[in-house]
Amino acid sequence: MKAKRGDTKTRRPSEKAPRLRISGSQHSAAPIVTLLTDFGSADYFVAALKAVILSGNPAAKIVDITHDIPPGDIEGAAFTLLAASTPFPPGTIHVAVVDPGVGSPRRPILMRLAEQFFIGPDNGIFSYLCENWESFGGSAELFQLTNTEYFRHPVSTTFHGRDVFAPVATALSNGVEPARLGTSISDLVRLAPLRPMIASDGRLLARIIHIDRFGNCVTNITGNDLTAKMIAAGPTLRLKGKSVKSFRNYFAEETTGKSKLFGIWGSAGFLEIAAANDSAAKLLKARRGDTVTVTTQQLI
Amino acid sequence: MKAKRGDTKTRRPSEKAPRLRISGSQHSAAPIVTLLTDFGSADYFVAALKAVILSGNPAAKIVDITHDIPPGDIEGAAFTLLAASTPFPPGTIHVAVVDPGVGSPRRPILMRLAEQFFIGPDNGIFSYLCENWESFGGSAELFQLTNTEYFRHPVSTTFHGRDVFAPVATALSNGVEPARLGTSISDLVRLAPLRPMIASDGRLLARIIHIDRFGNCVTNITGNDLTAKMIAAGPTLRLKGKSVKSFRNYFAEETTGKSKLFGIWGSAGFLEIAAANDSAAKLLKARRGDTVTVTTQQLI
Amino acid sequence: MKAKRGDTKTRRPSEKAPRLRISGSQHSAAPIVTLLTDFGSADYFVAALKAVILSGNPAAKIVDITHDIPPGDIEGAAFTLLAASTPFPPGTIHVAVVDPGVGSPRRPILMRLAEQFFIGPDNGIFSYLCENWESFGGSAELFQLTNTEYFRHPVSTTFHGRDVFAPVATALSNGVEPARLGTSISDLVRLAPLRPMIASDGRLLARIIHIDRFGNCVTNITGNDLTAKMIAAGPTLRLKGKSVKSFRNYFAEETTGKSKLFGIWGSAGFLEIAAANDSAAKLLKARRGDTVTVTTQQLI
Repeated sequence: MKAKRGDTKTRRPSEKAPRLRISGSQHSAAPIVTLLTDFGSADYFVAALKAVILSGNPAAKIVDITHDIPPGDIEGAAFTLLAASTPFPPGTIHVAVVDPGVGSPRRPILMRLAEQFFIGPDNGIFSYLCENWESFGGSAELFQLTNTEYFRHPVSTTFHGRDVFAPVATALSNGVEPARLGTSISDLVRLAPLRPMIASDGRLLARIIHIDRFGNCVTNITGNDLTAKMIAAGPTLRLKGKSVKSFRNYFAEETTGKSKLFGIWGSAGFLEIAAANDSAAKLLKARRGDTVTVTTQQLI
Repeated sequence: MKAKRGDTKTRRPSEKAPRLRISGSQHSAAPIVTLLTDFGSADYFVAALKAVILSGNPAAKIVDITHDIPPGDIEGAAFTLLAASTPFPPGTIHVAVVDPGVGSPRRPILMRLAEQFFIGPDNGIFSYLCENWESFGGSAELFQLTNTEYFRHPVSTTFHGRDVFAPVATALSNGVEPARLGTSISDLVRLAPLRPMIASDGRLLARIIHIDRFGNCVTNITGNDLTAKMIAAGPTLRLKGKSVKSFRNYFAEETTGKSKLFGIWGSAGFLEIAAANDSAAKLLKARRGDTVTVTTQQLI
Repeated sequence: MKAKRGDTKTRRPSEKAPRLRISGSQHSAAPIVTLLTDFGSADYFVAALKAVILSGNPAAKIVDITHDIPPGDIEGAAFTLLAASTPFPPGTIHVAVVDPGVGSPRRPILMRLAEQFFIGPDNGIFSYLCENWESFGGSAELFQLTNTEYFRHPVSTTFHGRDVFAPVATALSNGVEPARLGTSISDLVRLAPLRPMIASDGRLLARIIHIDRFGNCVTNITGNDLTAKMIAAGPTLRLKGKSVKSFRNYFAEETTGKSKLFGIWGSAGFLEIAAANDSAAKLLKARRGDTVTVTTQQLI
């Protein structure tokens, strides 16, 4: 049982973006605008965002993060945005539209964090990003998008992705200052905290925050919660009535023990429960939100 | 019961594209080429189109509208093309390939309409666009693509997306005049009309033309068919044995009445039947083509 | 019964890329980087690759081939890469990440073939490309990616797409020479050969190598295996207990005979078994790997 701390993928306030040793790169480039929505890929919605952005800034580089967030799943969007945004270069503009409250008084907002920009509804979608950033001592700059001059008119009541968020992202990509787009605000809607809790008996109370395509169960446990020293002492993960005591450094590593299940540091900086050549989620009948407890030798 | 007329998303011949107040935008940009197909996302087909386009015009900006049109579903493609194309800037070239007749004598065509270009098979796929444009007094310019000089050789009999439509779109994006690409023609294949009918008893006879990812049932009713005045008088929508009398301005709006179903002006300019936090299509077991009738107080 | 030889889509060493008669095209363009993975479209994985590439080379044109390769399906990836890469222009860089062995000692490699570049794990994913190229007398240039200077650090053990393959593709797109990226190697991991075999009784022993979205069953039979002369003599295809004797030039062609099934030259240069307005795969309950035998008159 051994495991090395994976790549955090969480940029600390004091850090620069990971340095790539690549010759000839130029960062005075066309602005990147990413899209993350629950629109799916069969409708005209995603194309509408791109049409608006390219109409206003033909030089924009649009990158789809995903459009397969389940309809209205703000928590899923919050995790994916956290995991996906880190490797993007400074100046990237992320547009996140999972917006069941579209047209209601919920606030449209812009957040500047870690040299990147995030635009979307204030419904918790930026909650994990903000919490993670604050855990490193950083603080986000927040704006409510009040300047309708930068919206697409007439503004519909059912599609602010097209009429509010994409046009504002376009303006930003064209160099408009955040302070011109709205008014400064001091906080945003928060989801239940991302960080695991520590029980009175010393156990780590964690949960599954994402299940990926391969059936790997991503927990909310980071290297700060479960240190290399703790792992060396032999922790036990418990979830769905099963115990996981094996850790691997990579998926295809050979380890002893008859259980197919093992822990592994995933590429988003969180501990994952995986299964050898199988879907851990299927084996465990696991779902997002399921509790994961961790007991370490020191703590018993 | 109240509802405000939504954004039409249908550009009238007399209008310019909706103006975006965005600084620094330049419209002398790389040409946009959109793709709408029934190819799905798992095969090599979409990549082949992009390879051909970027081989011929490396500056082209390619935008996927969707590749998830059900195989051979011309009517679905016709609706999505109508809904998706409006916000694109003048000069955009749309390539639409839902083409069960590929290799047969069906005509490959190019249509110029509303300062945009549409390229694909003459099988009805451009029918709704054309009908909608004509309802505003506009008229499309049509060409049969006869100049094989602009095709990719050898031309296969099974993949004109790659060998005919994408190369012609590329030529157009490089500045080749439509008249060089083919010969002028006067009409195209038409689907059953998009517009609802008025029955002898005054009822509006409409239908569901699309069901979106959220289960909203898009009807073919526009603000011309059901005016603000008619809505103020309290209309009743009937479909699948149910009555819908409630209208909302936005999805999360609180309204009275115990039915979850309500009418709402959708972002494509059509009246939609939606359900509070639910899929109207699932609740109603609705499918595209299902009849929707509208009775208004004035008419009874 | 007649069938014309389709477009091979396999560029021979002696050939140039198919010439497109398009005015104004310039090939001194931004480098194209394609992505083919089993990541699906719901996770943050694909966005991570794009973030890394655009961070290192903002001018790169990224094209998704597909991300819907079934998890760990190397054979499926090998076919799709073969079929998809042909129409791309010289200089294109293909990144292929179906990598169940990530973090294990399996080699990360770069292959130069047909004026294009292929980057990914050495697990057979480039096997069909190489075999096909060799059948025309070509030979690939191979490199093991050993120069960690061009990796993203820290290199994770679970996501070499982000930390190895995408950064190396970026370096290549920025003009770094292959020889700087690693050391020359002489062979790569091979899958079972793509070519059909000839049985002692003269029958062609082939197999289904892909089933596309439309249910067409792509075989591994090319025009070299089944010549126009052989087709003129009236061959019989047998698979899943059925005989197919009818051939079509295009899908909607009218042919005699009561079976819905027919053979047709597909757009990737292979013989396909298709069904009139139906899914041949569904009718036949066919799956990849199923045997297809061909008997020709001459051979009996």
